[in-house]
Amino acid sequence: MSFLTVGTVAFDAIETPFGKTDRIIGGSATYISVTASNFYKDQQIVSVVGDDFPKEVIADFQARGIDVEGLQIKEGEKSFFWSGKYHHNMNDRDTLVTDLNVLADFDPILPDSYKDAKYVMLGNIDPNLQIKVLDQLNGKPELVMLDTMNFWMDIAMEPLKEVLKRIDVLTINDAEARQLTGEYSLVKAARKVVTEMGPRYLIIKKGEHGALLFNNENQVFFAPALPLEDVFDPTGAGDTFAGGLLGYLARTGDTSFENMKRGIIYGSAMASYCVEKFGPNRLLELTREDIETRLKEFISLSQFDITLS
Amino acid sequence: MSFLTVGTVAFDAIETPFGKTDRIIGGSATYISVTASNFYKDQQIVSVVGDDFPKEVIADFQARGIDVEGLQIKEGEKSFFWSGKYHHNMNDRDTLVTDLNVLADFDPILPDSYKDAKYVMLGNIDPNLQIKVLDQLNGKPELVMLDTMNFWMDIAMEPLKEVLKRIDVLTINDAEARQLTGEYSLVKAARKVVTEMGPRYLIIKKGEHGALLFNNENQVFFAPALPLEDVFDPTGAGDTFAGGLLGYLARTGDTSFENMKRGIIYGSAMASYCVEKFGPNRLLELTREDIETRLKEFISLSQFDITLS
Repeated sequence: MSFLTVGTVAFDAIETPFGKTDRIIGGSATYISVTASNFYKDQQIVSVVGDDFPKEVIADFQARGIDVEGLQIKEGEKSFFWSGKYHHNMNDRDTLVTDLNVLADFDPILPDSYKDAKYVMLGNIDPNLQIKVLDQLNGKPELVMLDTMNFWMDIAMEPLKEVLKRIDVLTINDAEARQLTGEYSLVKAARKVVTEMGPRYLIIKKGEHGALLFNNENQVFFAPALPLEDVFDPTGAGDTFAGGLLGYLARTGDTSFENMKRGIIYGSAMASYCVEKFGPNRLLELTREDIETRLKEFISLSQFDITLS
Repeated sequence: MSFLTVGTVAFDAIETPFGKTDRIIGGSATYISVTASNFYKDQQIVSVVGDDFPKEVIADFQARGIDVEGLQIKEGEKSFFWSGKYHHNMNDRDTLVTDLNVLADFDPILPDSYKDAKYVMLGNIDPNLQIKVLDQLNGKPELVMLDTMNFWMDIAMEPLKEVLKRIDVLTINDAEARQLTGEYSLVKAARKVVTEMGPRYLIIKKGEHGALLFNNENQVFFAPALPLEDVFDPTGAGDTFAGGLLGYLARTGDTSFENMKRGIIYGSAMASYCVEKFGPNRLLELTREDIETRLKEFISLSQFDITLS
């Protein structure tokens, strides 16, 4: 009954209009697992770091209930490092440094105890590696969710299309939905994804403009982003969203459309906290009360009462 | 107990990626009054046209319950004409022609029977004219809503700031909210508008990304736009939104925040119909059932059920 996350555990250095960090902890699997661990305890992580990665962060993962048997530590090597600078609109960013380091020949190996995972989150890595993960699983999980990006559509569209056939939920942004399908209309793009490409759910992440959920029965749901006074650092918001959503689905054991709607609100609430501080710092300090407070804000933000005959 | 709209009644020629029109009926007051007449019968219009404007359109206004005593018809002159071409994203457009014609020296004169209007919609015209309208009213209406745009901020910021002091609801887009306040954060911009500039409500229209409502008690509400297969022609969508919102408020006689939320959903539903055909054509054929159908789509699009302790 475990929740398996595959992705990066890494260092980031981030510059935004509000400030600048030195090397801090980052990586898609970090954001996903840390967030999901608020909702579902049986977390497992498959990733790779160098021996420069702080032991106390790994101990902190374990303290949160994240099993790290699948987290490879490469002696004498360095962890993946990304550095970027956000523009004033916080949607555009320039990558300053990408040092793949240990990620260059990452081979995601699942410990035996991970092979019956019920919920699987394939973070944004090479689709060939995402396939390799699915190949190691015993049978079909309850739900497989996959995140990817334009970079893989540019250089690995074929393996990406292969892995899409084997998953349940795809999360991408609006430009990526257009690139993947060749359709400008998001409604048409979504229909193509959920009826022809494999996933039965598509989530289009629109950052400050919220997120759209489509299924293969012509249903659609929209979740707003919380209007924030300042977005401090958007790094990891998409992964946090995914971790909150899949964590909620795992806790409730319900992957229906109605419950996906709730999960997307949970994911949006978690993402709205993520962007309040640099890196995963805000996520690491959240209490159950914080999460409920934010959920109430989402309810008041988007719920209305119209009675029709 | 009347509903007064001041704005343009005009001709448009529109080109979108889906097609092209000859001269068709347009103008902010047209979209607002036609939409509001679905909800509230006692409509009054103050505008100006030339003698080239079709008599049958004016008769159609009257058939919908729109009083046209305030619609000036200038013999021997031509109606305002605008022509524009939308880009593929439907958010950006190039203006091809602006022939002010009768609008060049429009003097909005309120017939006596209009001076006790309870609901007033000041469409997007010169703020000096908007002030002139308010000066003619007997006492304070129940609600005054004002629409404006960056053009007036560029050339008439002072009179705009004057008229803002006298209104209740301002509708602008996100870039305009930033220009008006000098704040990049929409939350900060909204706070400035509703606590310092006059209006007690601010609505930020974000087109395909929905609309935000802020009040002067730190409440915020978000209404999504309906994801449409194709946006055929966005002309008039903002005015249609305003007409649906204020029409609903007039019908229910309730200007509380909770009812503003409902009104914004009504406005969004009407706007989603507007963009399905060129000009106001789709609006003119709508039935009560059509409106209810679309409202149900908005409910299912945005409502979820999360119970917190």
